[in-house]
Amino acid sequence: MSQEAQKSSVITIEHAPEYAGEVVTVRGWLYNLRESGKLLFPIFRDGTGVMQGVISLKEQPQAFEALKGLTQESSVIVTGMIQAEPRAPGGCEIHIQAVEVVQKVPESSPYPIQLKEHGVDFLLDQRHLWIRTPRQAAILRIRAEAIRAARNYMDAEGYTLTDAPVFTPAACEGTTTLFEVNYIDDQKAYLTQSGQLYVEATAAALGKVYTFGPTFRAEKSKTRRHLTEFWMLEPEAAFAHLADMMDLGEGLVSAIVQSVVKNRARELAALGRDVSKLEKIAAPFPRVTYDEAVKVLQTAGNPTKWGDDFGGDEETLLSKEFDKPVIIHRYPAAMKAFYMATDSERPELSLSFDMIAPEGFGEIIGGGERQSDYETLVRRIRESSLPEEAFQWYLDLRRYGSVPHAGFGLGLERTVAWICGTEHIREVIPFPRMLYRVYP
Amino acid sequence: MSQEAQKSSVITIEHAPEYAGEVVTVRGWLYNLRESGKLLFPIFRDGTGVMQGVISLKEQPQAFEALKGLTQESSVIVTGMIQAEPRAPGGCEIHIQAVEVVQKVPESSPYPIQLKEHGVDFLLDQRHLWIRTPRQAAILRIRAEAIRAARNYMDAEGYTLTDAPVFTPAACEGTTTLFEVNYIDDQKAYLTQSGQLYVEATAAALGKVYTFGPTFRAEKSKTRRHLTEFWMLEPEAAFAHLADMMDLGEGLVSAIVQSVVKNRARELAALGRDVSKLEKIAAPFPRVTYDEAVKVLQTAGNPTKWGDDFGGDEETLLSKEFDKPVIIHRYPAAMKAFYMATDSERPELSLSFDMIAPEGFGEIIGGGERQSDYETLVRRIRESSLPEEAFQWYLDLRRYGSVPHAGFGLGLERTVAWICGTEHIREVIPFPRMLYRVYP
Repeated sequence: MSQEAQKSSVITIEHAPEYAGEVVTVRGWLYNLRESGKLLFPIFRDGTGVMQGVISLKEQPQAFEALKGLTQESSVIVTGMIQAEPRAPGGCEIHIQAVEVVQKVPESSPYPIQLKEHGVDFLLDQRHLWIRTPRQAAILRIRAEAIRAARNYMDAEGYTLTDAPVFTPAACEGTTTLFEVNYIDDQKAYLTQSGQLYVEATAAALGKVYTFGPTFRAEKSKTRRHLTEFWMLEPEAAFAHLADMMDLGEGLVSAIVQSVVKNRARELAALGRDVSKLEKIAAPFPRVTYDEAVKVLQTAGNPTKWGDDFGGDEETLLSKEFDKPVIIHRYPAAMKAFYMATDSERPELSLSFDMIAPEGFGEIIGGGERQSDYETLVRRIRESSLPEEAFQWYLDLRRYGSVPHAGFGLGLERTVAWICGTEHIREVIPFPRMLYRVYP
Repeated sequence: MSQEAQKSSVITIEHAPEYAGEVVTVRGWLYNLRESGKLLFPIFRDGTGVMQGVISLKEQPQAFEALKGLTQESSVIVTGMIQAEPRAPGGCEIHIQAVEVVQKVPESSPYPIQLKEHGVDFLLDQRHLWIRTPRQAAILRIRAEAIRAARNYMDAEGYTLTDAPVFTPAACEGTTTLFEVNYIDDQKAYLTQSGQLYVEATAAALGKVYTFGPTFRAEKSKTRRHLTEFWMLEPEAAFAHLADMMDLGEGLVSAIVQSVVKNRARELAALGRDVSKLEKIAAPFPRVTYDEAVKVLQTAGNPTKWGDDFGGDEETLLSKEFDKPVIIHRYPAAMKAFYMATDSERPELSLSFDMIAPEGFGEIIGGGERQSDYETLVRRIRESSLPEEAFQWYLDLRRYGSVPHAGFGLGLERTVAWICGTEHIREVIPFPRMLYRVYP
């Protein structure tokens, strides 16, 4: 390494434009290499971005030899001068002076993901490597920003994080999608399907709370919207009603989207996302009752009758009416879970709501007001054939100081998939778990 | 409700002092009631704090009757005038004008947790109610602040959150503490013991990353420091070494502690925590080698020999030498996991470190530099009798652009237990899971 190189400061690619005219060192991987006679045009990545380099045999023979023929994804430490170059991705390139190859990927067993199209099953098998691809890395950075924005919003709204347990004694969303665990000494436990019941308890202790963690459903259907392991943000507030949660939900979703638009513009551009559609996402969102939604569907020629649940087709149809997420509220009570409160004026309706993302990305929020009356809740648990014994602690919340309370669950992956404009939610979680996939 | 009451604004107890002289409404629960002839002195809680009230039969006969004899934890909406009262907890009290009882806890089945000492097994059975107790509520609010501070610190240091999966194909920390899950269609999966292997993959994609989520170990020992489900924050950085992670660890822990000291002073006071001890927690922390630590122990009369692991007694003895967390580094390689890098100058040592909290609260961080050489790692996997097939993806990280990298795991519950000064970590997680406990 030259004298010059040793003095240079180590930088990350995202900050490279700030060092135009300076000699710097970048540590990362060779993403691509174009050879053109006595010139080499490598592209480096370091996790924060990609940067094009240039080197000539004549000027830097030693570094040229080190780079020439170097295999994709070999790890390198590169020193050179940053120069502004408007045509290059990121607005600059590096004029290479020295290259240290940290590990060379053997030519006999090259990096399995080439710069071409691969089938998705192959890519999922290589997920630990696939995430290095600029598109996947951009999605993961957007996911992290969405989580950061969501937590900041909840904290600023006075909600206290109270993590719900993963091990639970019983089902909360029906037994068909329940994962059973072999607990210690032949005991059985189940993986949480939702932290809701637990945040109802912590809301009675702390007022306004949320949980944000992984939840599990043994989804036997192989659809682009289902994972067996996914993250949910679930707020719950004591003395809160349906309208409070619709307000909170639209504030939260607006905050997430605007934070990504502001802080991850480069990543959205890398995905080719139409940002003008995201810029419009600001509260208030349109709200329609279930009754009205059924009429909208029927007018559009959809066969849905009052009392039917909405599937993906119906959600897409409804979302096309609006350029913001749409809130549908007061679904038939028969359609919703045992814990949902009913409308005192029309007992056939539940005080529930869903939020449907625009552009056909489906439901991102479901929630509403909870049943706070002890007797009614016992009846609903029995009607739902749930194990009453396992719910004694939950019933205690109605025995001891029951209050009106409400909350919702926001599906992180569906929200991020919409923001990224990706069809499949398997791309928006670092290591997706699905029907036949727990590897890598 | 009086005309006055209807006009009042709804406030939370933590903000009550700002409303001195104003009529306000508070929504919450009756925490305690002292009756003194024609005067009642209730204490209310609303999740943000507790506030004393006062009411006389003569001035407010209707509200007096509503409150008189009211059972503990009944839910109420109370309106009255806030008055500064230096002797009261929180510095003010409410002169009650109106009381609406939302739900009265029946006298026939009173709230099970009385204002007296209960056994811990009883309290753990009632965890969904126990968290309403001011001490438990304070701990949970401190936990939430610790998490907020930790995430903010990592984000500010340029680390990207990449959630590790809970479902994994194999053990990472030995098979004896592994939980097995009945996955779909007779497949088997295991609950993650650590996200480390996965953040090693995301670090090669994004540079500096962390995961922060629940991890699982089937701990068959019933100690005050073990849970079967606990949260870990695990950073990992490409091109990083042992020293970088010791720096990051002390910065992170300092940030967490100082954030709690600053933003949760009221809660620390409620716990009777000696805050002067926490105020001292600022980087740099003392660092001693394993070699030195053994000598310190031997000088103190402890029978530890070189090559022995440190147990709780040794950790306590070492931590007593310092009023800050102490970092012990370069443990014997034989003592550490297969993925740990060794010291090139002394191959019998690993490039590892632990951080031990002061005051006998034990290990809060363990980490170090990872083995980046493919051949050595394969050998270590075989020596550890781990299923090589399940680690093929992990070995790929050394096949394709291996770089020096390092990271650590911070145990959230142990850190919060230390900050709170609580002996048992079961109190610092909303719903603790232990050997024989998955309920409530």
